Amino acid sequence: MKKDQGFTAIKNGTVTSPSGFYAAGISAGIKAGKKKDLALIVSQLPATAAGTFTTNQVKAAPVHLSMRHIKDGKASVIVANSGNANACTGIQGVSDAKETAATAATLLGCKQTDVLVCSTGRIGVNMPMDTIKAGVKKAFENLDDEAGSDAAEAIMTSDSCAKQVAVKLLVDDKVVTIGGIAKGAGMIDPMMATMLAFITTDAAIDRRTLQRCLFEAVDLSFNAICVDGDMSTNDTVLMLANGAAENSILRSYHKDLEKFQKALNWVTRELARKIVLDGEGVTKLVEVHVEGAASVTDAKIAAESISKSALVKCAWFGGDPNWGRLMCAIGYSSARVREELVDIYYDGLLVVRHGRQAKCPEAKLRKIVAKDQFRITVNLHLGQGKHTVYTTDLTDDYVNFNKGE
Amino acid sequence: MKKDQGFTAIKNGTVTSPSGFYAAGISAGIKAGKKKDLALIVSQLPATAAGTFTTNQVKAAPVHLSMRHIKDGKASVIVANSGNANACTGIQGVSDAKETAATAATLLGCKQTDVLVCSTGRIGVNMPMDTIKAGVKKAFENLDDEAGSDAAEAIMTSDSCAKQVAVKLLVDDKVVTIGGIAKGAGMIDPMMATMLAFITTDAAIDRRTLQRCLFEAVDLSFNAICVDGDMSTNDTVLMLANGAAENSILRSYHKDLEKFQKALNWVTRELARKIVLDGEGVTKLVEVHVEGAASVTDAKIAAESISKSALVKCAWFGGDPNWGRLMCAIGYSSARVREELVDIYYDGLLVVRHGRQAKCPEAKLRKIVAKDQFRITVNLHLGQGKHTVYTTDLTDDYVNFNKGE
Repeated sequence: MKKDQGFTAIKNGTVTSPSGFYAAGISAGIKAGKKKDLALIVSQLPATAAGTFTTNQVKAAPVHLSMRHIKDGKASVIVANSGNANACTGIQGVSDAKETAATAATLLGCKQTDVLVCSTGRIGVNMPMDTIKAGVKKAFENLDDEAGSDAAEAIMTSDSCAKQVAVKLLVDDKVVTIGGIAKGAGMIDPMMATMLAFITTDAAIDRRTLQRCLFEAVDLSFNAICVDGDMSTNDTVLMLANGAAENSILRSYHKDLEKFQKALNWVTRELARKIVLDGEGVTKLVEVHVEGAASVTDAKIAAESISKSALVKCAWFGGDPNWGRLMCAIGYSSARVREELVDIYYDGLLVVRHGRQAKCPEAKLRKIVAKDQFRITVNLHLGQGKHTVYTTDLTDDYVNFNKGE
Repeated sequence: MKKDQGFTAIKNGTVTSPSGFYAAGISAGIKAGKKKDLALIVSQLPATAAGTFTTNQVKAAPVHLSMRHIKDGKASVIVANSGNANACTGIQGVSDAKETAATAATLLGCKQTDVLVCSTGRIGVNMPMDTIKAGVKKAFENLDDEAGSDAAEAIMTSDSCAKQVAVKLLVDDKVVTIGGIAKGAGMIDPMMATMLAFITTDAAIDRRTLQRCLFEAVDLSFNAICVDGDMSTNDTVLMLANGAAENSILRSYHKDLEKFQKALNWVTRELARKIVLDGEGVTKLVEVHVEGAASVTDAKIAAESISKSALVKCAWFGGDPNWGRLMCAIGYSSARVREELVDIYYDGLLVVRHGRQAKCPEAKLRKIVAKDQFRITVNLHLGQGKHTVYTTDLTDDYVNFNKGE
């Protein structure tokens, strides 16, 4: 599987698939009903670390803390809880996130700055710190090199299933493994959920190279999905690389770096796809590909405008090939558009040619839009810019799921 | 009624309330089922004209034509049809719009450039020109100085009721009347509908002053409403002023100009409110007021970010005072925000203070959000910029209404 790309997917792979990683996912009591709500991921060896964080100006306290702690490119521990976002919690929130890091650092005998903290859940409520501290201790006692799935489960909020994946590849004839877990971007009241993803690898990699690799992977995956267009206060992607595979350090000129990047891209894209497919009330996964844009930025803007349009998404839900709404959505985006140049394809079938309805068999078109996965390609014929967004339909279930109690 | 503001609302007021205006609304046969689908509005006297048009880069053919015809600030006829948008129809569409104008001009004995053309309805289908031309003739034969309501009805698409209003005021001791009709911004498949508004007045007013007055009025009304954030290819607001009231010409220094502006603002705001309230599947009208922004632009951006957030709108539908989603939506907007300065009020009740939950009685808060109209005030405490957006909730009915057949 995927061997042609230079890597192999690992069955039931997760964050503990790479060597030297331990994890735990336990019920600390933050959530009701004894659900798992606290995850701990630990690298046995000191690890290189990279991260990308929400660009929302309203950032949760743990986001601020983790951004500081990751600055030196080193970290070996991730503590993540669900049930409380520790967002909009002021100074108390910051001190709570610090205390969480300190608790883990003491137990694990590392520096506080080597601990990254993530939270997801309800906004505006202070963290139950006694519960959290006891939970970190319990998680520490449960650390296991096969418990990645427990960690994946402990970060779930409105997700219907845990999301995890791993691949292996050869770097310098050494087997290198990359594993990842993630939780969904959907939102459920009274919780405000968040996109979190944690990637581990036993590759030895330079910190700047790791950060660049992660940026590329996130750009093509988590930054290319759109369920409802809302961006949370807590969105975080973290990656730890501990070098246990003993390959020669991956740097920009390493012959296997491209292979590593491709494998990482596959891991993040799989996690992103799982998130989209598990979106609240979602019935369709739609790939919106814009090409021929005046620039990559324009391609992104046009693809996102389509992906965020409530009208477009409702039409997909109804299986209605309403290309007029697509034309409209790219027209009101700020991307450069010349109506008379636009071509639109549904799964390769030409529907709009030069901005006007193409002669395509209506029955065939309807069959495509009735599917639960299809691809829309928009060619703006203005340049070389291209971008793909993975998005969903908008359903009555989504509305009912998010309307609160 | 509204007398303190210097103007009086006219009961059953419409575009034929001002002197010297005739209208007709007839069934031409563009729509099925003998529904009214063609409107004609005519000023007996040559009139000053102003307009604002969609900023969507994909503009319907009649939008291009009307933009050209209004450039000289003169026009006396509006022809508007529902049932076909004449959008994405290429060169044929442009020539069809021209032929419509020519037909009206011949019947009315005016120049083609004095005729403004608007269309709303299905995208991507050529106009049935024989039907249109016969319809214009029928409308001409039905012109009547009390038929404004028929015109209001003929431009409806998914609207559940006709939208019309008129006010009178004194300018130089002359009674001046302003009337208006509009159709909704909602969208229904297979029609892509549009926001159209036509304003008439018997005031004598300089063309530049008229354009400025219309810009201000539109900015505070039609540009301040948000149902689903989609902007149509056909959105158009037109205003004709024929001077039949015989006031001294309204110019920038006229002592009664401010009174006229206020009256016009009221007309457009009432029409905009009617559009929002008639939004597809809407159950709540929410006024989102942002103040204390670093600039007016920032206030607009923040208010629109809240108004377009699917999560925020779903919470309103459920009567859920989810202020976390509001914080989140202003945070990911590009408006300048400092979390620790943000205050949020629901109908005057302080809910968020300095970016954190204020101590407010939960029961009282829930009562506010359960209402079918309430006001949210966000103070960013960064400057003087303020802006109000009129928006709605997002409901399962909206989704089902827009999902197509």
